[in-house]
Parts: sequence; C-alpha cells; structure tokens
Amino acid sequence: MNVRLPTGTLAFEPAEFLQRVKQVQSRMAAAGIDVLLVSDPANMNYLSGYDAYSYYTHQMLAVAADVAEPIWIGRKMDVACARYTAFMDEANLVGYPETFIGTDRHPMNFVAQQLSERGWSQRRIGVEMDTAPLTPRCLERLRVALPDAKWVDAERLVNWVRIVKSPREIAYMREAAKLSERAMEVATAMVASGVRECDVAAAIHGALIAGQPDYAGHFTMNGGLSMPSGAKASAPHLSWTGERFKTGEATNIELGGCRHGYHSGLSRTVFVGEPSARLRACEALAIEGLNGALEQARAGVTCGEIADRWNVRLRRAGFEKDSRIGYSIGIGYPPHSWVERTASLQAGDTTVLQPNMTFHLLMGMWMEGWGFILSETFRVTDGAPEVFACFPRQLFVVS
Amino acid sequence: MNVRLPTGTLAFEPAEFLQRVKQVQSRMAAAGIDVLLVSDPANMNYLSGYDAYSYYTHQMLAVAADVAEPIWIGRKMDVACARYTAFMDEANLVGYPETFIGTDRHPMNFVAQQLSERGWSQRRIGVEMDTAPLTPRCLERLRVALPDAKWVDAERLVNWVRIVKSPREIAYMREAAKLSERAMEVATAMVASGVRECDVAAAIHGALIAGQPDYAGHFTMNGGLSMPSGAKASAPHLSWTGERFKTGEATNIELGGCRHGYHSGLSRTVFVGEPSARLRACEALAIEGLNGALEQARAGVTCGEIADRWNVRLRRAGFEKDSRIGYSIGIGYPPHSWVERTASLQAGDTTVLQPNMTFHLLMGMWMEGWGFILSETFRVTDGAPEVFACFPRQLFVVS
Repeated sequence: MNVRLPTGTLAFEPAEFLQRVKQVQSRMAAAGIDVLLVSDPANMNYLSGYDAYSYYTHQMLAVAADVAEPIWIGRKMDVACARYTAFMDEANLVGYPETFIGTDRHPMNFVAQQLSERGWSQRRIGVEMDTAPLTPRCLERLRVALPDAKWVDAERLVNWVRIVKSPREIAYMREAAKLSERAMEVATAMVASGVRECDVAAAIHGALIAGQPDYAGHFTMNGGLSMPSGAKASAPHLSWTGERFKTGEATNIELGGCRHGYHSGLSRTVFVGEPSARLRACEALAIEGLNGALEQARAGVTCGEIADRWNVRLRRAGFEKDSRIGYSIGIGYPPHSWVERTASLQAGDTTVLQPNMTFHLLMGMWMEGWGFILSETFRVTDGAPEVFACFPRQLFVVS
Repeated sequence: MNVRLPTGTLAFEPAEFLQRVKQVQSRMAAAGIDVLLVSDPANMNYLSGYDAYSYYTHQMLAVAADVAEPIWIGRKMDVACARYTAFMDEANLVGYPETFIGTDRHPMNFVAQQLSERGWSQRRIGVEMDTAPLTPRCLERLRVALPDAKWVDAERLVNWVRIVKSPREIAYMREAAKLSERAMEVATAMVASGVRECDVAAAIHGALIAGQPDYAGHFTMNGGLSMPSGAKASAPHLSWTGERFKTGEATNIELGGCRHGYHSGLSRTVFVGEPSARLRACEALAIEGLNGALEQARAGVTCGEIADRWNVRLRRAGFEKDSRIGYSIGIGYPPHSWVERTASLQAGDTTVLQPNMTFHLLMGMWMEGWGFILSETFRVTDGAPEVFACFPRQLFVVS
C-alpha cells in the first residue's frame, strides 16, 4: 500500500481500491481468468487511482486472482506519476526503460517478461479485446512472447463493476454537477448575438476548472464541452469555433464538470432571437420525455423500458430519433469519454436499474439543419432518482 | 468534393487534402497496399478534415489506391459532424446504424460490408496495427468478415507523411504558438504563494481557448496542460489540483495552444521563493542545451545527432536523463496526444531533418522529488530554425 503520501491525498481510501479489486477478482474467477490485463485508462484509474495523461504510450495494470494489489506497468518516467496518484506499494509500480519508446522494441515484450517473472506465463490471461488503447500489435506481441498462456476476452469486465457507485464516488459526481451548473450558468448568461463562440467556451472551461471555493475542477475529458451552433447544431460532437452567435440560431451546449475523474454531464440549448414553433414543440417534447424518464427510472426497471416509453411518445409526436437517450456515466478518460460503455437507455437493453447506478440522460434531437438537447445526470434509488445538477429544464432564449 | 459548405469554411482547401491523399497513395503503392484503413483520429483529420470528438465509438477512413477521396465510415449520427468538417462528397460519408451501438453487433462488420460492396474484399488491406482506437477485436472481426483479403501492417504510414508541414499547416502552428505565449504570460504572472493551482489552470485554459481577437483557440488535446507542483514536479504527466502554491516549490507548466488540431507546445518552470543553487544549475544547463539543440537543428542533421550532443553535455554536468528531448509535433487527438510518433530527438534516431518538419524540443528534467522543464516548438529550415513562440527562456521566479 502507498506509504509515500500523506493520508487523504488519494482520491479514495486504499480500502476502497482493494474492495474494487476484490469485486473484479470475483468476476475473474467466474470468467476463468487468472491474470487480468487492464488497459482502459478509466479502468486503470478505477482499480488503482492512477491519474496521468500518459495513455499515449502503452501501459496497463495486471490484476492477479490471488494478489491483493494490482501491478502498474508503464513508461519509466511515469512511475513518478503513479507514485503520486496510485494506492499501491512502490514495489508494484514497474517502469519500462526509454529504449521501448520511439524504437522498434515493443512495451508488451516488457509486460510479458514481467508476467513470466511472476510465474504467470502459463496462466489464463484476460485482455480487454475491444478497448483502446490496446492495439492488435499489443495482443500479437503478448501472444508470441507468452505462447503457453491461454487468452480470455475480458472486455468490459471492469466496466460492469464500475456501474454501481460507492458513496465517495457519488459525492464526487455531486461536486462535479456543481461545476456543471456553474458553467452552464456562465454560458447561458453570456451567449448573445455577436459574441464569439470561443469566448463562451473559454468562460465555460474557466468555470469548470476553477471549480468551487473549496474544491478544484479537474481535467475534463474532451475539454468537457460540445458546442455546435447554427446549422451545425444538427451534429452531436462538434466543438466551438471563432464564429459569432447570430440571431435566429441555436447553440447546443453539452458540458461536464469533473472531480477526480468523475463527470456529471449537463446539456442545454440556447437560442438567440425568437425560436420557431417547431423548436418550441421539440423543447416541450424533450422536457416531457426527460421528466417522464426520470419518473420511471428507479431500481427494478430496465434500461430498455425507459427507452421504449420515450420512443412511443416520440413517434406519436411525429419525431424520429433512433439513438439512445442515455448511458451509464462515471469516470471519463480519452478516448472513451465519460461513457461507461455498459448500460444504455436504448431499446432492447435488459440491464436492470440498481441503486447507485448513475446515468447521463440525454434527449439529443439532432435534426436536419437544427437540433435541441437537454440532459441531466442522475443516481438511481429505490424511489425517485437523485438528479445531481439543479438547473432550469428549458430552452434558453437570449437576444 | 464537399459542396455543402461556403468556400473557406474548411481548415484547408480540398486541393490540399487531395494532395495529402496522393502522398499516402504513393506510400501505399510502395508497401503493396490497395486499401488503407485509417483509424488514428489525427490521421483521419489529416486526410479528410474530419474534426469531432466521436472517436469513442468505432470509425475510420478507407483510402483506396485508385480513388481520389477517402471514404468516412462511422456512427450514423456523426455523419452530420463529417458534413461540416470533412472535404469529401456526401456520397463518401457512410454511417452505420445505431443498432451497432451498445449492442453485440460490431461496427467492423459494417465496415467489412462497405469494403465488399466496393469490390475490395480480396484486396491487400492496410491497417494501423499499433494505433488506438483500433482494437484486437476490430481486426479479428475484419479478418473473419473478409477472409480473402490480405492484411498488411500500415502502422505510421500516414504519420510519416504528416511529418513535413505545408505552408498552411505552419501558419496554424504559428497561430497556436501565439496562444501558447499568451497563456504562459497569464500563468507566469498569476502563480504566487497562496494562489490555487486550479485557478491558474482555469486562466490558462481561458487564454488558450478565447484565442486572439481575430481567431479562436480550438479544442486542445488533454486540455493542453500539464502542471505538477512541489515534489510532484518530478512527474511529467500530472494535472493541476486544488492545492495552493507554496514558497520553496516549483510548478512545471507544459501547455499547448491549438488551431484546427495543430498544437505548439511550450513549457516553463515557475518557482515560488528563492530557488536552490541546484535548480539554478539545472536551469542553466537546460537553457544551454535547448539553445545548443536549436543551433544544431537544421536540414541535413539527424535527430540522433542532436540528442547525442545534449547527452554528452548532460553527463559532463553530472545529470542523468535517459528520455528523449523532443519529437515531431503537429495534429493532436486523444489518446495519442500531439506527439506524432515518428521522429524522436533521441539517441539512435536516424531521421534526417528536412525543411518544414516541426519539433517540440523539451528539456524535461524530472529528478527525485523535483523537476525543471523548458521547451520550444520549432520549424526546420536550411538555416536557423524558426521558433514559433517568443517567450523568455528562463526559470520564472515569483513570490
């Protein structure tokens, strides 16, 4: 256990990390996995606390079925990053030399050697088969270097453990929502005809990062902000530009504050001028849909049921939307964003809601040449959900 | 070609994109590749202009040897993002349905079908084998769905084309450097004992994104900022926290403005209080090393030669640093950051500098419990390099 840092420096107590590892080990046992290689930066953070933007070089955690602490394996210079953010003992932070960077040597050969030295070369090894940044070359090198190992697909194994949050995780998401509220307040007050998109984006980032008087906002995935305007409001994942807001156009603001890696998403549309009846109708529908889904979303209901009701209502109103209306949210790292990639609020998703699951519920109406978005992040309970942010659910109209 | 947008809306003229594609096709011919699948978001941007943070779902470009325009294949809702950022004709923007999201269906089966429909199922297909977000599962699905294709490793093929910049790319990097300058000015003026790290980080982001009066700052990779303080200055890739700067401690600020995806990195160390003789010695050495490397860096010299001279000087001064002192820089997208992953200023790198290559030259001295960093981004010429930012090369001392 990390004895390098003063108590309270880590985002979670070592006991919480050890508890998470145990839950993962229990799923490993069920899946017949002896050693799990975790390469998703969000999963690495979840199981160790490791928090650095070093994911552009190969790195991973190795979780063994019978060892309490994960082993961090990454670039030698980033051992220092692990030292200040991960809960494990120094002996469990292993760096590969710089000769593996910018050369033909592959870090996975180093990883394989580490596994061999621990006597794991013939074990059943789990890998996240469909998760960046594990590449086809990584797996190939591991297979060649460890020919006697048995390879097991462990895709999303850790993600499914992440889906139910602890009290401390919930607390961070509440704090993140305060940052989202504040940033949205700044944004809706600032958008106006003639104001540049980038100036609003700068103010949003300022609010998200400066945080509250008693806590900081942290590195937000993707800058924590989508902000397409005008006709581009038909597109879901565009950033701001240097253009000025124009009368008669909307901007769709999707942002998310971050605390220790945990995000709370919040989306609103701001319209400059007089909105059309069509946009107003879409607003009314989205508000009704969002409120309806929140009423419905409690422990025991399935994700699919929530989506189905919305889809029926939507079709009756003459709108078409085939994309999901939300997903499990929590830790966010590039490139996977804050989407946990487990439960989706989508037709056919049979996931049963449980207390302390958290969702980003997003009514994203991306139409031909225009759009409207409205979202909240909430926590499932046995009764009414806890919506983290408190911000008017409406189209914001400015001049 | 994109006829949807007014001329000048794209970051580059269609002719420039077509020229890039031609260069890639020429390398494809040399490597025996008929169809290249490009999954690196930076490479996708380079060859098409596509700019959206949709890389958390599977997407790619298909570049055929005998077709002028690449084909964008991604999530259906993101076709709208391509419509506003990519240069290609609408017919070359192909979206897979939402039934491939959050379900067992894999987008690579859709990609395979697209290739088959174009008669490419038996071709020699290049894939970026060691680049996120192409996963082992992606390649497996492609192989199974296209059993008659021949698979060729095309890792870094596009990256090596990107290494020499065009006049327009250089212009964006100059503009990005202005943003870096301004942000560093704000940061060095604001750091002081008792000020919170997050407040400085917020101001830095504000400056990077609000940009200049005549242009915006764009979405910066990783928030464009590393800022570890105190003992953590020994670690290269940590973010800010909510802590306050303390007398007797340094903070290492590595930031990078961004214009249309192009970054210019800039790093400085700020010390609160009276720096030690050891830190001053390190400062002197880093300045000397950086200036020396800049004197040496001109067309015809190899990357390794630059690193060697620095390493000799370093050892003579009694310091140890085994990591590279820079790398080719340009477009940056998560998770690979602005590191182009081609040439490194590192012992043994035989890349010969050519005019209009651009490097982030970083003297990063991460020692036991402290650190000092100093960096510049420059363009190679036949004579003295063009250093993009203009900012004093020194340790900043504040109180």
